[in-house]
Amino acid sequence: MKKTIGILGGMGPMATADLFQKITALTDAGRDSDHIRIYIDSNASIPDRTAAILEGGEDPVPAMADSLRKLEACGADCVIMPCNTAHYFLPRLEPLTKLPFLSMIEAAAAACSRRFPGKRAGILATTGTLSAGLYQRALAAEGAAFLVPDEGERAALMEVIYRGVKAGAPPERYRGAFLSVIESLADRGADCFLLACTELPLAFQALGLDLPFADPTEELARAAIRFCGGKVRGE
Amino acid sequence: MKKTIGILGGMGPMATADLFQKITALTDAGRDSDHIRIYIDSNASIPDRTAAILEGGEDPVPAMADSLRKLEACGADCVIMPCNTAHYFLPRLEPLTKLPFLSMIEAAAAACSRRFPGKRAGILATTGTLSAGLYQRALAAEGAAFLVPDEGERAALMEVIYRGVKAGAPPERYRGAFLSVIESLADRGADCFLLACTELPLAFQALGLDLPFADPTEELARAAIRFCGGKVRGE
Repeated sequence: MKKTIGILGGMGPMATADLFQKITALTDAGRDSDHIRIYIDSNASIPDRTAAILEGGEDPVPAMADSLRKLEACGADCVIMPCNTAHYFLPRLEPLTKLPFLSMIEAAAAACSRRFPGKRAGILATTGTLSAGLYQRALAAEGAAFLVPDEGERAALMEVIYRGVKAGAPPERYRGAFLSVIESLADRGADCFLLACTELPLAFQALGLDLPFADPTEELARAAIRFCGGKVRGE
Repeated sequence: MKKTIGILGGMGPMATADLFQKITALTDAGRDSDHIRIYIDSNASIPDRTAAILEGGEDPVPAMADSLRKLEACGADCVIMPCNTAHYFLPRLEPLTKLPFLSMIEAAAAACSRRFPGKRAGILATTGTLSAGLYQRALAAEGAAFLVPDEGERAALMEVIYRGVKAGAPPERYRGAFLSVIESLADRGADCFLLACTELPLAFQALGLDLPFADPTEELARAAIRFCGGKVRGE
């Protein structure tokens, strides 16, 4: 009997749908019943994580705790969160439940260092994730080199994430801003890119970009399939 | 405060991800918190609906009732099912819960008759859905003309659905079979197509087909957004 997955989602909803789709596509299944059972609470009203970390915005932990209760009631065996910035709150969330969390940050940092040995990863993320140093610590623990966006690049990324993907804007509207951040990081020595905000794999796909990158959503999907006893397609 | 959606899913899991993605994309939202809260139980081990209807296969209702309990525990305000064939069991499911079901069949039949007035819809569906007459009754109630696949066409559709989409096969493997059913129905007088199995919009999209069609998954997404007090993009 395979274990089941609980997705503490809604951060954002399109990224949650992307994680669900990736778990399904990456499960080596010949028929419906080979798939893992997944419970999702997609609550897009969870207060913004970056605003809470940097601007004293509303604390998202009570709303996240409410989702944890629902996933426990369903019978989930583990919890995953399709929001990198939300992982800042993991030390406060873990004591609230007996369910194990699988960390997207750790899964992505390990995959990035394995897939691009000796390369320098440009971390594309929210100002919340960057200021909290979530990926800097995880990549350093892997012995991987990285490059962090400067202030102007961070501001441009926040525009792409909030006024682009989260606002449902057409990709053409944020293509220029996103490409300029990528070019600027490449000029400064980034050899590959870590799409360290769950809206960014959606932007990458919508824009049809062909660059060496690691997708934390996809790495978390693989980690969850393995944890539950499923088989990852191609492994 | 908007109402919340419960998705009794897993039938199949990719179709469930498709419904979730369509609800999110069709919600007129400028930021995360404009989205509707969605609870999903994606249980791909619910026994096959067509096998239960036609071959005395295992009854799916107990597993579906288990999902209903979980969606109730989460606090869902309505239930939707991304499986047309599952609607055969609606008369047995409705007495098991106080939550209202929104019918994909009714939403799709109404949209098809509204969007293609005076046209004849070819019903592309599983043998379970076709034998139960689910869409024939709903389209007749709308006064819409329709055409039902013959035995050979039904068998070809079942191959596309089960050995194609549900098995995660590359689209090239089922392109020929799917196109031959569509051509054959068009020759017999179908002017438009009702993609009346939730795997078929996925096949349509993967194959990049450009034909007049109604997508029940999309129509159910619209109906759910409206029920919950959300705004449908473009309406």
